[in-house]
Amino acid sequence: MRTLVPFDARQPKTRLADLLDREERIEFAHAMLQDVLDVIVAAGGEPEVLSTTPIDCVHDVTVDERSLSDAVNGVLDGRSLPIAIVMADLGLLTPSAFEKLLEPSADVVIAPGLGGGTNALVVRHPEFCVDYHGISVRDHYQRAQECDATVATVDSFRLAVDVDTVSDITEILIHGEGRAYEWLRETGIRLATEEARPDIVRE
Amino acid sequence: MRTLVPFDARQPKTRLADLLDREERIEFAHAMLQDVLDVIVAAGGEPEVLSTTPIDCVHDVTVDERSLSDAVNGVLDGRSLPIAIVMADLGLLTPSAFEKLLEPSADVVIAPGLGGGTNALVVRHPEFCVDYHGISVRDHYQRAQECDATVATVDSFRLAVDVDTVSDITEILIHGEGRAYEWLRETGIRLATEEARPDIVRE
Repeated sequence: MRTLVPFDARQPKTRLADLLDREERIEFAHAMLQDVLDVIVAAGGEPEVLSTTPIDCVHDVTVDERSLSDAVNGVLDGRSLPIAIVMADLGLLTPSAFEKLLEPSADVVIAPGLGGGTNALVVRHPEFCVDYHGISVRDHYQRAQECDATVATVDSFRLAVDVDTVSDITEILIHGEGRAYEWLRETGIRLATEEARPDIVRE
Repeated sequence: MRTLVPFDARQPKTRLADLLDREERIEFAHAMLQDVLDVIVAAGGEPEVLSTTPIDCVHDVTVDERSLSDAVNGVLDGRSLPIAIVMADLGLLTPSAFEKLLEPSADVVIAPGLGGGTNALVVRHPEFCVDYHGISVRDHYQRAQECDATVATVDSFRLAVDVDTVSDITEILIHGEGRAYEWLRETGIRLATEEARPDIVRE
C-alpha cells in the first residue's frame, strides 16, 4: 500500500532539547525516518515522504511547507485511495506491527498513540480528512463517523510509541533496533538505572 | 485460564501523590483492580487476587506480604500451570486485549509495559520464575531462554499501559471506561488541554 510518511525536517524533535542539540536532533530524526521507511519496504509497502523541506532520500519526497494536517489533507485530496499515513518517529515500528495496520478492511483504520495522538492511519474513504491537533484520535473517530466510514482500531504498543520526549527514548533503548538505536548508542545515550521506568544518561 | 492479579493494598500508587491523597490513591487502585478483574471474567478467565493485605473481593484472595516477585514465585512454585499473571493497574485493559495474551501457545508469553516493565505474562513452563525489579522484560526473556522455554511477545497498547504516573492517567481519560474512569471523573479529574500529550487538572 502507498504509505505517506510526514516528516518535519526543519525543527524536528524540539522536546528532546534537554538531551540533544539541534544538529543531533536532526540526525536522530533522520535515523528514525529511515528506520520507518525501511520497515515499510520490508513489509511490502511503498513509502513516500511528505517533508517540510527538501531532503535527501531514495524514496519519493513531496515538499509541503504547510502544517502537518494541511499537508496530509492535500495528499488525501488528490491521491487515489487507499493510502496509509505513518508518523516518521515510530521508533519501535516493525514489519509485523506495520502489517497489523494493513489487516483490517475498514474505511478508516486508526492506530492510537500515547497521549491521544494518531500514529498511523489507513484511509479508504474519500471524504475522510485528518486533524492532528490536540487529542487527534478522538477527532479522527468523530470525522469517520461524520462521513459514515467504518472504523477499525489497531491495538499495538509498537504503533503507539512515538518518540517525542526523553522518556520515549527509553523505549528505543529497551526494544529498538536499527539506525536510531545505533545512533543513540554511538552518541553515548544509554539507560541510566535498573529501575522500572528507567532514566536516561548521556556518557 | 487461572489468572493471578497481584495487588499492593498497603501503599498503592505512591507516584500519584501530587494528584491524589492516600485515601484517594487507595480508592483509585481498587477501582482499577476491579476493572481488571471484570475484564478477565468477561473474557472467560478465572481471576485470583494476590494481595499484600486482606481485601474485600468476590474473587479468591491470597494474602502474601512479601515482595511482588517473591509472592508471584510462591504461587508459580505451588500451582498447576498454565497461569496468567496480569498487573492490577492496567487501566486500558479490555477483554480482547486480554484474549490476545492467551492466544500464543508458547511456554512463556510476555506483554511488555512502558518503561521495560512486564505487564502481563502467561507461564506454561515449570522452571520459569519472575523478577519484576528493573527492566523486567529483559530479565524475563533471559530467564525463559535459560530454562529453554519458547517465548511469544504480545504487542498491545492496552496491555502496555500501566497506570503509575499522572501522565498515565491521561490514557484512561482518553481511552478508558469502567470504574477507574468513572472514579476519576467523579473526583474532578479531567484533561486540561487540547494539546498533544495533554495535561491533567483537578477541578
